[in-house]
Amino acid sequence: MELPSKLIEAAVDQMSSLPGVGRKTALRLVLNMLGRSEEQVEAFSEAFLHMKRGIHACNQCHNLTEMEVCSICLDPARQGNLVCIVEDIRDLLALEATGQYRGKYHVLGGVISPMDGIGPNDLNIASLAVRLETLTGSSDKVEVIFALPATMEGETTAFYIFRKLAPLAVEVTAIARGLAVGEDLQHADEATLVQSLRQRLPYTS
Amino acid sequence: MELPSKLIEAAVDQMSSLPGVGRKTALRLVLNMLGRSEEQVEAFSEAFLHMKRGIHACNQCHNLTEMEVCSICLDPARQGNLVCIVEDIRDLLALEATGQYRGKYHVLGGVISPMDGIGPNDLNIASLAVRLETLTGSSDKVEVIFALPATMEGETTAFYIFRKLAPLAVEVTAIARGLAVGEDLQHADEATLVQSLRQRLPYTS
Repeated sequence: MELPSKLIEAAVDQMSSLPGVGRKTALRLVLNMLGRSEEQVEAFSEAFLHMKRGIHACNQCHNLTEMEVCSICLDPARQGNLVCIVEDIRDLLALEATGQYRGKYHVLGGVISPMDGIGPNDLNIASLAVRLETLTGSSDKVEVIFALPATMEGETTAFYIFRKLAPLAVEVTAIARGLAVGEDLQHADEATLVQSLRQRLPYTS
Repeated sequence: MELPSKLIEAAVDQMSSLPGVGRKTALRLVLNMLGRSEEQVEAFSEAFLHMKRGIHACNQCHNLTEMEVCSICLDPARQGNLVCIVEDIRDLLALEATGQYRGKYHVLGGVISPMDGIGPNDLNIASLAVRLETLTGSSDKVEVIFALPATMEGETTAFYIFRKLAPLAVEVTAIARGLAVGEDLQHADEATLVQSLRQRLPYTS
């Protein structure tokens, strides 16, 4: 479908660059945008720019933050020797929404997936090893909790990290499979997430 | 789900202001946006601002254009005495995509829908009447083609306009119902749209 203007074409191109948005949907969303006031469109556009400019990955755990280090890492009330490993920010948010976890996190930014060309070096694994090495030097008991997806890629990633941490005095656990296999962490209900945290078991490869 | 920053919160709010986008989907889209470079996010944001600032409704037919009058209205090769009435821009684009229609358009910007509080004065009907009055003064034979949806609202709108045009020497036709009832004009295939234009019949109330 040929659009009546290059400006609309460009807007549709950008809208359809979002994952899961096709060109027909994009056009519908763009026409909705045209029906708004200029102030509203400015607010829409600026929200993403401000976010992109103001948000960084936390130096320590790779959570999103406006500071150098995120509020979870900075919180003295949280256990520094308990590190929960998650695939991405949404999984962290899902666990935080339970209000039950008092340790810290490490966000990998994905899982190992040779099919998608994602190897260990594309993930925040090296920084995890360094972080845990420092932690084991200063703390008696360090625990790592795997809260990774119950998929081939998730399991592979967990095993890779487990092997990587073997030389360190770290207890490695995994959240209980209260979750149905194949169900996304971020879509699970909070009670199930609480159970899966409480019933964590020693990791066995 | 509480978000780790007001900046992300604002971006999710804006993303979920789009029709059909819920908060979970909005968060997914916003995190995708965060994974892009600043230049890419700028391009995304600017596309909508530039579009909003550069695009106006055509003075004559209310099609979208960067000029005062759209390229269809300005095209001397198109029949000025043949005016196709459509609900919105996407319907115009669908008809244009057939490449078979050589007349002009009038975009109503909606259909009469008392349930949604949309009356004749909310649509581009007054400007249509003025436009056709001028046209009948300068042209022997003026034809109006209704290409409105086959819904209660579409029929009501067509009937309202038909009555409004009664004093004018205008032939009123409607596109053939080659379209399945309830099927959107913009989703019909092009061959069906060509047929429905060719087989138009005198409008009967």
